[in-house]
Amino acid sequence: MSEYCFGVDIGGTTIKLGLFNEDGVVLDKWEIKTRTEENGQNILPDVAESIQAKMEEKSINKENIIGVGMGVPGPVDKKGVVYNCVNLGWGQFNVNETLGKLLDMPVKCGNDANVAALGEMWKGGGQGYKNLVVVTLGTGVGGGIIIDGEILTGANGAGGEIGHIHIQDGELEPCGCGNYGCLEQYASATGIVRLAKRKLATVDKVTVLKKDTVTAKDVWDAVKFGDEVAVEVAECFGEYLGKGLANIAAVVNPEAFVIGGGVSKAGKVLLDYIQDSYKEYVFHGSRNAKFELATLENDAGIFGAAKLVLE
Amino acid sequence: MSEYCFGVDIGGTTIKLGLFNEDGVVLDKWEIKTRTEENGQNILPDVAESIQAKMEEKSINKENIIGVGMGVPGPVDKKGVVYNCVNLGWGQFNVNETLGKLLDMPVKCGNDANVAALGEMWKGGGQGYKNLVVVTLGTGVGGGIIIDGEILTGANGAGGEIGHIHIQDGELEPCGCGNYGCLEQYASATGIVRLAKRKLATVDKVTVLKKDTVTAKDVWDAVKFGDEVAVEVAECFGEYLGKGLANIAAVVNPEAFVIGGGVSKAGKVLLDYIQDSYKEYVFHGSRNAKFELATLENDAGIFGAAKLVLE
Repeated sequence: MSEYCFGVDIGGTTIKLGLFNEDGVVLDKWEIKTRTEENGQNILPDVAESIQAKMEEKSINKENIIGVGMGVPGPVDKKGVVYNCVNLGWGQFNVNETLGKLLDMPVKCGNDANVAALGEMWKGGGQGYKNLVVVTLGTGVGGGIIIDGEILTGANGAGGEIGHIHIQDGELEPCGCGNYGCLEQYASATGIVRLAKRKLATVDKVTVLKKDTVTAKDVWDAVKFGDEVAVEVAECFGEYLGKGLANIAAVVNPEAFVIGGGVSKAGKVLLDYIQDSYKEYVFHGSRNAKFELATLENDAGIFGAAKLVLE
Repeated sequence: MSEYCFGVDIGGTTIKLGLFNEDGVVLDKWEIKTRTEENGQNILPDVAESIQAKMEEKSINKENIIGVGMGVPGPVDKKGVVYNCVNLGWGQFNVNETLGKLLDMPVKCGNDANVAALGEMWKGGGQGYKNLVVVTLGTGVGGGIIIDGEILTGANGAGGEIGHIHIQDGELEPCGCGNYGCLEQYASATGIVRLAKRKLATVDKVTVLKKDTVTAKDVWDAVKFGDEVAVEVAECFGEYLGKGLANIAAVVNPEAFVIGGGVSKAGKVLLDYIQDSYKEYVFHGSRNAKFELATLENDAGIFGAAKLVLE
């Protein structure tokens, strides 16, 4: 008799779900809306209902479900207790127990960035590595650290918060976290735009970036065409991120860094800028760490969630 | 029948050894000289001979030895392979196998700083914590990171090399590792002396530090007497180390930092300076990490080594 599991990735606007077989093959995937109203109290019942409907549709019995893995957007401890998922309206409660009772199945959840990192290790750009750092360059900078194949959760679920490494003294704009000079302020999509604006304010060169609205994608597109100003912005981005990753390497000495998120769509050129700076700052014991691009994109979360229960 | 184990801590000049019972009580401890000549080829035979002599002295049979744990001064991977112990003259070989064959017993070794961290968790300042960072402020800055009670070894034994976090741009003096601006250059005993010299060169205040040779101990003694210049040096030290530990916290989110090494003999005042800066830079999820002083001093290594085989 085949066995199955579900991988769930709860985001602020949509919830992604996947049905997997025991070999980790995704058999079906779908999305439902995240109902954040009323402190997000409908979210877990909606997930339970969606899973039960899928089991009925596919004629799968509860006895053949290994469990449900889930990524949630906020700190989660090892027991499944969330402390403050601002985007969902959630306070503090045990997600594993709550959803477990609704479904009468084993549930295991983790922080979404950490779970996505596990997904990339298992089926994505991190395959073959057991000690890796997955860096997600999106609106912010997220991270997931895997040590010997296991998520580094930390004391209260705040492991891998690498976007909030302090990287620049004297920064005057605050980070979303309230501090000043976090890595996220320079290496995220919005950070790259910040670097571009600052560069444009000080140089007087011809550049395609001189327009009303500049995006991170504009910068990387311009880099590929050799735009001088864009190249300088990319160097600045690489300097910050390479230095930040070198500091992470001094702590955890990973085999590889896997770079994902929207910004990573720029491709291999991005890795070149990061590695140049990384090699300048890294301790020699971590000098040979590999740099890879993530490959699962938005599915990393459901894959990692499935892996949580297939372990 | 009681069971026993040995904990061994190999340093560049002496080798410390301890005989422990299965409850982790140290029954005897002693030292032998480290013979580094001839590429350190006598070191492991000397250790084996010393252990066998102790077993004879105490009438302990081999059947009652659980194993030998050992800390060595250099990177060691999970299998016990050392890559380059410069201080011992060792190249690359498997220490667990080599000493294991000499003694016909199970041997497990790790990097000395990591093993000492395990010792502090088990019987020292880190008791009660399972996720902690042990920081050793001596001639250099060493570190050991414990995650869920286990040493974070890293891909090739360079985990916890926190002295080589890049913390200062524009530094002109090189660190021992060859990089510029490493944490070790400001937070070690020699680093504190560097900070004091730089401060003395720029201020014109009355201070007891104005003398031919200043040591880190002089600085902390003067801090306790309210010497203004010494306090400024301590603030500068705290700024660097607090910032560095905040960056480590963003990565591993520990429950506690345990501060040891010669510099930590300054006592609690040291923690105050570190924590002020730590709280300024740390991501909120790690804000409540505790700061403790290490307590085992030079015995941390043999305790941690014993713990390696008692696990």
